[in-house]
Amino acid sequence: MITASICTIGDEILIGQIVDTNSAKIANMLGEIGIKVSYTISIADDKKEIITRLKNALDETDVVIVTGGLGPTKDDITKDALKELSGSENYRESPEQMEIIRKIMKLRGIELSDLNKRQALVPEKAEVIANPLGTAPSMMFRIGTKLLFSLPGVPYEALGCMNSVIGILKKELNTEDIYHKTILTFGIPESTLAKRIEDWENNLPEGYKLAYLPSPMSGVRLRISKYGGSAKDAEIKTAEIVSQLKNLLCNAVYGEDDDTLQSVVGKILLKYNLTVSTAESCTGGLVSSLLTDVPGSSGYYYGSIISYDNSIKEKILGVSREIIETRGAVSRECVTAMAENARKIMKTDYAVATSGIAGPGGGTQDKPAGTVWIAVSSKSKTSARLFTFNGQREQNKQRFAANALNFLREIILDENR
Amino acid sequence: MITASICTIGDEILIGQIVDTNSAKIANMLGEIGIKVSYTISIADDKKEIITRLKNALDETDVVIVTGGLGPTKDDITKDALKELSGSENYRESPEQMEIIRKIMKLRGIELSDLNKRQALVPEKAEVIANPLGTAPSMMFRIGTKLLFSLPGVPYEALGCMNSVIGILKKELNTEDIYHKTILTFGIPESTLAKRIEDWENNLPEGYKLAYLPSPMSGVRLRISKYGGSAKDAEIKTAEIVSQLKNLLCNAVYGEDDDTLQSVVGKILLKYNLTVSTAESCTGGLVSSLLTDVPGSSGYYYGSIISYDNSIKEKILGVSREIIETRGAVSRECVTAMAENARKIMKTDYAVATSGIAGPGGGTQDKPAGTVWIAVSSKSKTSARLFTFNGQREQNKQRFAANALNFLREIILDENR
Repeated sequence: MITASICTIGDEILIGQIVDTNSAKIANMLGEIGIKVSYTISIADDKKEIITRLKNALDETDVVIVTGGLGPTKDDITKDALKELSGSENYRESPEQMEIIRKIMKLRGIELSDLNKRQALVPEKAEVIANPLGTAPSMMFRIGTKLLFSLPGVPYEALGCMNSVIGILKKELNTEDIYHKTILTFGIPESTLAKRIEDWENNLPEGYKLAYLPSPMSGVRLRISKYGGSAKDAEIKTAEIVSQLKNLLCNAVYGEDDDTLQSVVGKILLKYNLTVSTAESCTGGLVSSLLTDVPGSSGYYYGSIISYDNSIKEKILGVSREIIETRGAVSRECVTAMAENARKIMKTDYAVATSGIAGPGGGTQDKPAGTVWIAVSSKSKTSARLFTFNGQREQNKQRFAANALNFLREIILDENR
Repeated sequence: MITASICTIGDEILIGQIVDTNSAKIANMLGEIGIKVSYTISIADDKKEIITRLKNALDETDVVIVTGGLGPTKDDITKDALKELSGSENYRESPEQMEIIRKIMKLRGIELSDLNKRQALVPEKAEVIANPLGTAPSMMFRIGTKLLFSLPGVPYEALGCMNSVIGILKKELNTEDIYHKTILTFGIPESTLAKRIEDWENNLPEGYKLAYLPSPMSGVRLRISKYGGSAKDAEIKTAEIVSQLKNLLCNAVYGEDDDTLQSVVGKILLKYNLTVSTAESCTGGLVSSLLTDVPGSSGYYYGSIISYDNSIKEKILGVSREIIETRGAVSRECVTAMAENARKIMKTDYAVATSGIAGPGGGTQDKPAGTVWIAVSSKSKTSARLFTFNGQREQNKQRFAANALNFLREIILDENR
């Protein structure tokens, strides 16, 4: 079994200013090609400390992934430590990264500074992995029989470069076949789900493992893994297992692997040549923002009216003052009118509307913070549902938005297939 | 200087299934009483590994905080390791934790199992720190001159117990003061910023350290730290240093510590009793969603018209077809009309509008993906600016939205102070 360690560098992690999200994502990517992470460690921006810890990591594991400490400013001393560790005498300029830096600075209309130029310098023994998303290059070092990778700390840059690293690792090392399939479910709580699929889980073929991955935005993801053996065989066998699982869960299964509720809604809308709009109150544009996170969403998403203030509900969405005064903005009647009117005003096939209380303030005994009404309107009908959660403001917003997308998905499927 | 290490135990962290949020919060709490975290490490549920790593941690730091590995199923591993490490011969039952376990099980209506009862067992050399929030007890061990604490892994249980740990540490150790201050800047790239404040940075008083923390959504945060000495003195001295820094950066400084662009915009709007609305195209509701992430945002935020499709720009926002046909949706003219009309339609003091190309598709030679026009409209004028970035779709959206919030902030400050 090939082992790895992940080392994140930066005082900001050690004083608790930022949460290290890189390690989990990198560990996940390594796991997918059968490399086992033995440990992750976060250390300070201190040259001596960096060298000592990385030497240990190289002794203890086959692959070392380092993130952070590559910015242009003074607190970044990782590169010096890597120069010493790799036995490089000097720095050399990486022409490919220099080209990227020039492009980025030109695009931003900023003159190239000495600091920028210094970012293209790498220890001479480094093999450069170009980082098209930022100014700091990623690097690979061969130290004895071990491989050490140094990536920038900014999460999207680090993960962008990890794709290249995974490619290199697959080529350089004899990685074991691992087959993963993730089935995405929404709307069934983890414990209920576990009970519903208990027999199926107990009868999984030998060597197959199941993991439950719950999250407010994605529901419960079920990951089936098979380590070793042929990935081709595992793929065929897994398809069979998954088909049994889908029979047990029906509509609660919304996708696989990298799908998201918003990408799945998009695919369905494109398939049936349909369009959608939203009318949001408590979610404040989050449903709309999620829908437009999907590339190509302009093909089916028209727009949204965010009516945070009741005056907007009345004047632009045409919800009657009577409904707001007698039923309240957080009511079946209000959210139904919001969805129906949004659909008509924006001339779309579907519209989804939300009205609720994200908290922490604004709740009442009848409608505590965490309460949300969601409606979906189509040409044939408008349906509304009440949900209650008990999270903090941001989690509530996320749960509201995810449930709105899922409700929309269910109604569209119901009416079209 | 008293040092600490934080050790999180659990396979789920190493396969990337969960992000370790405990370490950051524990580090923060330790920092506040002047204990410096030298490193954090995540390791597997493996007894030998646990013993080795904890021995090292005890050699390297004065205080070791362990979280995780105390659940009813994994119980034996961490607790066995701690029994061995502390030189305990046997387990003993903790009566205070047994009482809590009984209460919790009764509340949940579950009969006490052997597994539950076993959770009240601790190595005999452990001093128990009762955990009222869960079934696993926290423990303290004195090993030589060092202190080792073992806490449950569930975040709210771990942090609950940390409050007791902090009390113990303050009593047992002669803790040193640490003072941190973070200054938030936006709109100046890290390398340009470093140049602009170079002299100031070189003249920082002895013992003061500066760190640059860049991110697409928050700009560049500058953290000033002072270890040792009196926190009171550091606070006074830092105020002086910060005031010099603000003179160098003027409007680019938008806040301090836990502020965000959206919370700062909210504070300013409340201060001057002003309201805001948005009209978004490429950001698809993200500006609106960020503004409403702030509790109490209903006090100044009215709503938004998300006009992803040009038909919505025309029909609801009243942008003339001529502008869209001759100038394009991504143009100064279009975004200016969007902002002006949104402000009038939603009857707010300010409106901010975005129109651009998030990518990856939709770009042209003149207007590549990453291009955005942003406009801010007030009663007295409407201003528009062009920005270009080169990230991926989601990062571009984030940068567009952050720049929209910052542009809004600058204009409101300009017109009101």
